[in-house]
Amino acid sequence: MGQTKAKAPDTAYGVLGMLTFGEMSGYDLTKAIEGSIGFFWAPAKSQLYAELRRLVTLGWAREREVEQTDRPDKRIYTITPAGEEALRDWLGTPPAEFDPIKSPFLIRLFFGHLAGPEAVLGLIAEHRRQAEALLEAFGEIETHLREQGGPLPPYLTLTYGMTYARGVVDWCDRARKDIDPGMAIPRGKGGKG
Amino acid sequence: MGQTKAKAPDTAYGVLGMLTFGEMSGYDLTKAIEGSIGFFWAPAKSQLYAELRRLVTLGWAREREVEQTDRPDKRIYTITPAGEEALRDWLGTPPAEFDPIKSPFLIRLFFGHLAGPEAVLGLIAEHRRQAEALLEAFGEIETHLREQGGPLPPYLTLTYGMTYARGVVDWCDRARKDIDPGMAIPRGKGGKG
Repeated sequence: MGQTKAKAPDTAYGVLGMLTFGEMSGYDLTKAIEGSIGFFWAPAKSQLYAELRRLVTLGWAREREVEQTDRPDKRIYTITPAGEEALRDWLGTPPAEFDPIKSPFLIRLFFGHLAGPEAVLGLIAEHRRQAEALLEAFGEIETHLREQGGPLPPYLTLTYGMTYARGVVDWCDRARKDIDPGMAIPRGKGGKG
Repeated sequence: MGQTKAKAPDTAYGVLGMLTFGEMSGYDLTKAIEGSIGFFWAPAKSQLYAELRRLVTLGWAREREVEQTDRPDKRIYTITPAGEEALRDWLGTPPAEFDPIKSPFLIRLFFGHLAGPEAVLGLIAEHRRQAEALLEAFGEIETHLREQGGPLPPYLTLTYGMTYARGVVDWCDRARKDIDPGMAIPRGKGGKG
């Protein structure tokens, strides 16, 4: 599994993966990410350019300049065989830890008893609305992908997002039933999660 | 709703919220976060100290030095009435966007067709194991909270995490059935999400 090979952060491998779709400039890369993997991987543009340079240093990508008559010259990046091998090694190595939930919603909810039941119900209603909108957008992409066909893994990332959004909607519906003026934890045995 | 008040990043409000549990040093704050809200909010220690200074500058917290005989003096922070008001305003303002999924797992999965079915099944198996472990840990906390009682909102953040982890386990079970040597998107109408 290439334990002794050069290691790089996940973002570098993500960029490497995008280059398997074909040679790209930094700008092309930004657009390709937005149109595909962007929902769960949205590095800053400056970081993407830094990773492209790192890939060249590691020998995982080649860089060439393309002259342009009406604009500044652009740099085009191509994955190398060493890059393809590094990518496969990384793909075969699961992340050491479960995905962090970085949630502006949960940070607020956690302190909800300081704001009262009405504020908490408002937070939950808006979160539910956002999850529903996401679910609808995902549903349209799903229909499109199933008509168009293609490799399964990107499709699975979509069904993952749909499961997540649907779980949020269900949770919102259950949570708001638990909110009364007292806002105390329901007693008794568990199973509300 | 205080639209014209000073604004700060979510992390500042999170720190403010923690100070409602009582006065704290930076060290106390780190420990209190680890033992409660840490799963979905884990700012760097340096950031926490910076936010404490910001709260003092904004007049949302007071700082005092406490002499210690055997160690360096420590600074203790207390929330002010202006801080309590700012916190309530923030709690009543839902986040503008849905929570980002920042997922080392999904970045790998997305490119899974480059690594083959076996690597993808391995990724999914490990992700499922991590989700199960999390679900078990959450279940123990849930039992404890239901016996102990307390305000509902922190309990709801727990059931949110449980819904999420359970959704991941279910998704893993469905996804691995879709993986065959061809690894193509199943054709026909949707509804697999």
